[in-house]
Amino acid sequence: MKNDPKDNNGQLRRREFLTTVAAASGLTFIPGLGSAAHNNVPGSESKLTVQQVIDLILKEIPGAPFPQTVDTIKSGDGQQRVTGIVTTMFATVDVIKQTASLGANFIIAHEPTFYGHLDETAWLENDPVYIYKKELLQKHGIAVWRFHDYWHTHKPDGVLMGVLTKLGWQQYYNANNPRMIVHPGATLGAITDHAKKSLGIRQVRIIGDRKQICKRIALLPGAAGGTAQIKVLQKEKPDVLLVGEVHEWETAEYVRDAQAMGSSMSLIVLGHSQSEEPGMEWLVPWLQPRVGELKVTHITSNNPFQEA
Amino acid sequence: MKNDPKDNNGQLRRREFLTTVAAASGLTFIPGLGSAAHNNVPGSESKLTVQQVIDLILKEIPGAPFPQTVDTIKSGDGQQRVTGIVTTMFATVDVIKQTASLGANFIIAHEPTFYGHLDETAWLENDPVYIYKKELLQKHGIAVWRFHDYWHTHKPDGVLMGVLTKLGWQQYYNANNPRMIVHPGATLGAITDHAKKSLGIRQVRIIGDRKQICKRIALLPGAAGGTAQIKVLQKEKPDVLLVGEVHEWETAEYVRDAQAMGSSMSLIVLGHSQSEEPGMEWLVPWLQPRVGELKVTHITSNNPFQEA
Repeated sequence: MKNDPKDNNGQLRRREFLTTVAAASGLTFIPGLGSAAHNNVPGSESKLTVQQVIDLILKEIPGAPFPQTVDTIKSGDGQQRVTGIVTTMFATVDVIKQTASLGANFIIAHEPTFYGHLDETAWLENDPVYIYKKELLQKHGIAVWRFHDYWHTHKPDGVLMGVLTKLGWQQYYNANNPRMIVHPGATLGAITDHAKKSLGIRQVRIIGDRKQICKRIALLPGAAGGTAQIKVLQKEKPDVLLVGEVHEWETAEYVRDAQAMGSSMSLIVLGHSQSEEPGMEWLVPWLQPRVGELKVTHITSNNPFQEA
Repeated sequence: MKNDPKDNNGQLRRREFLTTVAAASGLTFIPGLGSAAHNNVPGSESKLTVQQVIDLILKEIPGAPFPQTVDTIKSGDGQQRVTGIVTTMFATVDVIKQTASLGANFIIAHEPTFYGHLDETAWLENDPVYIYKKELLQKHGIAVWRFHDYWHTHKPDGVLMGVLTKLGWQQYYNANNPRMIVHPGATLGAITDHAKKSLGIRQVRIIGDRKQICKRIALLPGAAGGTAQIKVLQKEKPDVLLVGEVHEWETAEYVRDAQAMGSSMSLIVLGHSQSEEPGMEWLVPWLQPRVGELKVTHITSNNPFQEA
């Protein structure tokens, strides 16, 4: 997260310093040493550190690094050498175990690790679930970095592009208004079924008439919040809004009242994790060429719920 | 919301003043006049004002009136005479129309009217849905008051008691720890099916093994937020937590990780509106004797979603 000229200078100075120390001490492995020069050379023995991977990513993000962001390292150390990278929505216990079994030690997760947007852990210090997860990460030496604000800021928004690609709707992408898709037209039922099938979702929740024709489609994966979601409805007047998650007292009630008023504006709630998962899958082909021989793998964290 | 001695005195003075004005002006109807004395006399022609109904309720709420509360009048005027009272979860367009057709003009709603916890309307001034709803309320002369913070503060919590009653679990109520039920034991599947049937819910979302036995049941209807929900899990270590709504990145992920750790802690997400609706139904027999001849009716606002 430090890629402005000042920090680059700092990093160069640190690297020169380490080279000097290595020569003097006879150390054969210097974490992070030389990786910027070697990381695109297949077969090179050098590996990137967690921070170097982060820095490679942030070079592509307009305005990065941000003074305020939730995209911080949640576990591990920026200086540790990366053995393999996993992208996912949530660094769940299961995803951590799968990461370890792959021999990878760096999880790039879109969402929090410790059950809150800011990943505050003071209130969890004595919590058995938190302790178990923290120790599991430590045992396997796995670093976790959140890639949320930056990925949404990438041009184009990496999550949105992943979702559009998975939906087969890339051709409708409009850089001037990325949230809006102008579709040839299909019923709400057909749009719902298409979204479920292409995103691999067992069931969604909708508000609307399945027979209504939808052409103007607004796409807000994740949980943007009621104000943001409703402002898109106000501005774009879509036939349907696809979101990951709502507050049930906000967007859902707005759409219900709109329909009672006679509007055909409808809503599809996909589920948070599955609505953005394609964005972390789309990260793999984006990131792989930037990290050379390091293997980048997507592990789906799946929908935690069963319908009952 | 003014029921301290000073305000009662103020009200008495206002009433005396109005009596004098009435005598002098020949007015035959004085809003609010005499209702405190007459409201438990069936057949009396006098009616309460909105503010007088609110004041009658607040007399029963410990610590009321609160300096900060979302329980404010969202539509109409505290001085208008009440023709009938409707209790509901959401004052939806449909609930407003049903209220008007009953000849009632005062909706007591547990949740917001205008799509946000604080019912701020500045950002909605030009919104067609907001304008339609506001004008519909004005056309029918319907007042809306939110009864959320106060009803949860009532001893016992009115929402919780309504839900316990509907579940047939009143006998498990423990005033020292109202959120916890110690049940004789049933599988998660049986608890789920019982909750759906007794609360009239078509489908819920669960995280857990349907065959697991649940005895310690935590009950948090509505959307208390991840921190509050997880703190109950930490403190009470229930076999199952029943909630109305979660943030999917908070409580759901905590429970998923707890289960991956080997805990049998499970979660049932009922849906926000239907998880608290029984509390607004329970308000009817509580409020009816306090407002005399005014008819109090519950109208269910229902689950806005269809599964698809």
